[in-house]
Amino acid sequence: MENTLQKKRSAETDLGIFMSQCASDVDRVLEDLIPREDVEPVNLHSAIRWSLFAGGKRMRPAILMAVGQVFDVPREKLLRTSAAIEMIHTYSLIHDDLPAMDNDELRRGRQTSHVKFGEATAILAGDTLQNLAFLTIANDANLTADLRIRLIAEIASASGTPRGMVAGQQMDLEAEGDRNITIKDLEAIHRYKTGAMINVSARSGAFIAGAGDEEITVVGKYAEHLGLLFQITDDILDVTMPTSVLGKTAGKDISAVKATYPALLGLEKARELAEIARRNACVELSALDRDCSLLNEIADFIHSRSF
Amino acid sequence: MENTLQKKRSAETDLGIFMSQCASDVDRVLEDLIPREDVEPVNLHSAIRWSLFAGGKRMRPAILMAVGQVFDVPREKLLRTSAAIEMIHTYSLIHDDLPAMDNDELRRGRQTSHVKFGEATAILAGDTLQNLAFLTIANDANLTADLRIRLIAEIASASGTPRGMVAGQQMDLEAEGDRNITIKDLEAIHRYKTGAMINVSARSGAFIAGAGDEEITVVGKYAEHLGLLFQITDDILDVTMPTSVLGKTAGKDISAVKATYPALLGLEKARELAEIARRNACVELSALDRDCSLLNEIADFIHSRSF
Repeated sequence: MENTLQKKRSAETDLGIFMSQCASDVDRVLEDLIPREDVEPVNLHSAIRWSLFAGGKRMRPAILMAVGQVFDVPREKLLRTSAAIEMIHTYSLIHDDLPAMDNDELRRGRQTSHVKFGEATAILAGDTLQNLAFLTIANDANLTADLRIRLIAEIASASGTPRGMVAGQQMDLEAEGDRNITIKDLEAIHRYKTGAMINVSARSGAFIAGAGDEEITVVGKYAEHLGLLFQITDDILDVTMPTSVLGKTAGKDISAVKATYPALLGLEKARELAEIARRNACVELSALDRDCSLLNEIADFIHSRSF
Repeated sequence: MENTLQKKRSAETDLGIFMSQCASDVDRVLEDLIPREDVEPVNLHSAIRWSLFAGGKRMRPAILMAVGQVFDVPREKLLRTSAAIEMIHTYSLIHDDLPAMDNDELRRGRQTSHVKFGEATAILAGDTLQNLAFLTIANDANLTADLRIRLIAEIASASGTPRGMVAGQQMDLEAEGDRNITIKDLEAIHRYKTGAMINVSARSGAFIAGAGDEEITVVGKYAEHLGLLFQITDDILDVTMPTSVLGKTAGKDISAVKATYPALLGLEKARELAEIARRNACVELSALDRDCSLLNEIADFIHSRSF
């Protein structure tokens, strides 16, 4: 028991170092790619930076870079795609927070973009973060043109419709207030809304590695469980943590009558489902003939948010 | 005089045939690329189609295809990029019409997206039209990977910031209500807001043709004058035409205290400036050792909107 605990602590520390290194690497790249705050139009660039450098966990870049590391890809080949995915994630948060959408005033512990800069600038900041993301990959001189094309196509699909993030956000908005949502509906919503981008983050690491189709499929299956795990723990955090810890308004899901795993299953069953998702993610990895400890640790880390 | 008039009429007819052929070709491609209205989420896809198939003139595709035709490019190599540019144009219209932006209720003779489908869906329809645009180019099997990368990079720059469409829209919003705008400020705003996308439409035709740098520069200069001409005539139409003809609310620029060419210069001077822009556009083309009559006719056609 003590051994397990020690091993776990050490794993958490190793992962902690890995994640903070990923975050600082991707932040450096983002810093270079986004126009500075003194470049016109000043408000637009200030708004982009306000949301992008708000202390986000850089979870998607970490997943991409962890898969890349498992396949021995040099870090510099992974950085721009990671930065691009973080841009898309951030654009989606800015737009999701808008009054017409989730109407949230707090994100990552600070005012949301539209509260700070006004709605028009927030909409435009999100719009241009999206094209900066595709520009970033298109201009990535570390990757072949064929690889860049593949990444752009996969990320555009995963962030769009009918099987991507925007479709999921639309479904989520339409499900709001509907008390007849089933667990199956909920899974479909989240497979698109958050799952697709987590999935493409993981698979992008494998694409860049030049992994074979079978390996990419395994990584995709791992990421599917990881995405589910992520969403369940996110839902649990929303009901168990205060606003001060979350950095965003707590209890929003309940007040908006949003279907969540704890609401549909109760907290205990939701935690069980999280544990199953964690385990499934790790089981998939055993099909890879590689040292996947980093990816297992990421699953453990996300799972640990549910306690 | 009669000869000139006849020549002009015939030119308009030729151009009319060309433009309506471009529009129907690009509409066919768009029809294939956009999920059908019965695909979930139904409201999202209905909203995309509502704005995309509202009888837009397909001016940017026509410019791209005209340049391509001048360089003898087979039509099928031009279609997807044309469709992608039209998607970006349409996303920008949907977002510009939002209450937080220009707050317009009428566009292309029908309700704007947010009036018809609600603000949240309108925002998401715009968001996903943008990623569908990049997806469309990434998946264009008629073009080499290198060419697709170049097109994506150029179009992402032209539609973004700091020298693209989103930057221009931000500048335009910030200039609203400012009565001290100079003609120079106005030109800068429009060079980004509408000029950059018209410019990249024209140059994309030349990129796809594999034109040399000098030829691309000439096409870019032609398009710069064309963009200015387009904006001046658009401003003139806003004050001279009723809503029923425009298909969007007439006189909006005046009521929003927007700087426009007629407001700054008076109608007559604005018309003179339009004529100068038309002439400059045509003069640039003489540097190309090709039959540019189609491009001259496009300039004439846009110019004719100012009468």
